[in-house]
Amino acid sequence: MKATIFQAPGDVRVEQVPDPAIKEPADAIVRVTHACICGSDLWFYRGLTPFEPGWRTGHEWMGIVEEVGPDVRTIKKGDRVIAPFAFSDGDCEFCRKGLQTSCVRAGFWGMKNDGGQGEMVRAPYADANLVVLPQSIENDAALLKAVLPLTDVMGTGHHAAVSAGVGKGATAAVVGDGAVGLCGVLAARRLGAERIIVLGHQAGRMELAKRFGATDLVISSGDEAFGRVMEMTKGGADAVLECVGTSDSLNSAINICRPGCRVGFVGVPHYNAEMDFKRMFFQNIALQGGVAPVRAYIPELLTDVLGGRLDPSPVLDLTVDLDGVPEGYRAMDTREAIKVMVMV
Amino acid sequence: MKATIFQAPGDVRVEQVPDPAIKEPADAIVRVTHACICGSDLWFYRGLTPFEPGWRTGHEWMGIVEEVGPDVRTIKKGDRVIAPFAFSDGDCEFCRKGLQTSCVRAGFWGMKNDGGQGEMVRAPYADANLVVLPQSIENDAALLKAVLPLTDVMGTGHHAAVSAGVGKGATAAVVGDGAVGLCGVLAARRLGAERIIVLGHQAGRMELAKRFGATDLVISSGDEAFGRVMEMTKGGADAVLECVGTSDSLNSAINICRPGCRVGFVGVPHYNAEMDFKRMFFQNIALQGGVAPVRAYIPELLTDVLGGRLDPSPVLDLTVDLDGVPEGYRAMDTREAIKVMVMV
Repeated sequence: MKATIFQAPGDVRVEQVPDPAIKEPADAIVRVTHACICGSDLWFYRGLTPFEPGWRTGHEWMGIVEEVGPDVRTIKKGDRVIAPFAFSDGDCEFCRKGLQTSCVRAGFWGMKNDGGQGEMVRAPYADANLVVLPQSIENDAALLKAVLPLTDVMGTGHHAAVSAGVGKGATAAVVGDGAVGLCGVLAARRLGAERIIVLGHQAGRMELAKRFGATDLVISSGDEAFGRVMEMTKGGADAVLECVGTSDSLNSAINICRPGCRVGFVGVPHYNAEMDFKRMFFQNIALQGGVAPVRAYIPELLTDVLGGRLDPSPVLDLTVDLDGVPEGYRAMDTREAIKVMVMV
Repeated sequence: MKATIFQAPGDVRVEQVPDPAIKEPADAIVRVTHACICGSDLWFYRGLTPFEPGWRTGHEWMGIVEEVGPDVRTIKKGDRVIAPFAFSDGDCEFCRKGLQTSCVRAGFWGMKNDGGQGEMVRAPYADANLVVLPQSIENDAALLKAVLPLTDVMGTGHHAAVSAGVGKGATAAVVGDGAVGLCGVLAARRLGAERIIVLGHQAGRMELAKRFGATDLVISSGDEAFGRVMEMTKGGADAVLECVGTSDSLNSAINICRPGCRVGFVGVPHYNAEMDFKRMFFQNIALQGGVAPVRAYIPELLTDVLGGRLDPSPVLDLTVDLDGVPEGYRAMDTREAIKVMVMV
């Protein structure tokens, strides 16, 4: 089969690799139909995180089940399934608590495992990880595209909103206008936020934030943005979603939080945070979140997508085929695209 | 009247100062009978935080009301009252939420205000801040001593436990064996923790932790303590109380937290924390807490103290009179005393 392979920073290639096969009785083999390129893929693409030449790429995908192992109970050949970006055994203490990303047997797609940016994936613990979609949506390209972000960015934006404690009538602030931040806007609106302020930099993305339900856009940074948010909220937001993952963005999030409120942080941190801890301390500002247990959120979010109440698909603003994956990375790296869908 | 005055690091003196008088209609004048020296007083005593020569000291105190302003409704001359370590107006958004330390008119006793380590205090917003004790305990020295820590350390330990989410049956870990950490043990037990692990350094304090309900004592630090806690909890505590306030203690707390759990932090941070943010992120470990809204907690904790179910008084292991305050600072600075009670 063909799959995307990391060669070196700035260089991913679609190459021929061996087809996957069932190894464990709980495995399934899935033929990928749709995948994405993730903002977090840019970290290794830019050489900012360690990644080894030869590793597979892609952790967001859905497809059609080709084959299942003898222990698989809930998934069968021919099912259309989506997968969360991390897999888990579904049975440990943390899986049972809905924190599948801390599963004692957790792993990520890609690297030494099959990646989503390829033709097929061997999926361990298939019953625990794969969620079957109704047959009725098979020919609805728009709905399939709306489901795809549940593999990561929509679940991650939702995790930010849940972690920040967004509730009915709240004023939420979203730091970041990338795909996760935009999904955070959708999530905050879905959880009942009355006012949603987005802090970002790029006019096009901010317009999309507005379509998604943002009520206030702050296109500036640093002290100026801080002052504007503090003024418009009269002292800070009730809940802040940190969707970037830099030390600056985290401190911005803390600074615009109302006393006693929470920052829900989901931006992958590429730093040891040097934080304005005194503000956190003296204003009882909490920090909650982390890598999103997307598997736990798929059922409720899927219900809303299938019911037409939630549609994150506009974040997927460029589509490529499998051979176009390197071009997709380039377009995301240069910010020409918010997020790329791969039609495998 | 006499009051303790900060002169310079290592030098506090009991001196004659003007008597306080009613200034605002919501004020009360209280004659102090009992006060404490706080671990946080050592920061300015040691010259580690800015403090101006001439400023008053002492933020933990109780006493008898001498006089009330015309707007005071719930407090009268002759009442025995305790005060939280910070005062607030009782009426703003944050006071109504029980986060009195973020009150828009909040202030601390001492500095330019009257301090508890003196004969009298002018107490603003008397109705909001002062809590009247029953007349029946007036001659019960032991019970009065048990009530005194509700002004700060017992409420602060409780805030750590609440912020960490200690619940029935939980395994809680307490980082720090100072007065707050010891009160954190009491609080964790009171909230139903089944196992309470204390990480500390000093054998005498650890023995007191055991009397307070600690089930496991870890007298070591760094990697060794981490390894022991991870082994005894099989992967981390359900709730961690950070009761020190150094970068090391915070990172220890994060490291011994089970995935998905919370660090309740109440140690006053004298640093911008450089944190192991990646562990927080990848294991969804949250951080909640800050300066304790002790006023919110006094009623429920007082009920338990008066009912004989809670007694933090053993943390007060040295008693001095007002003239003995400088000696009390010295004894706490050298760790001869855990915490000093001042019988004014």
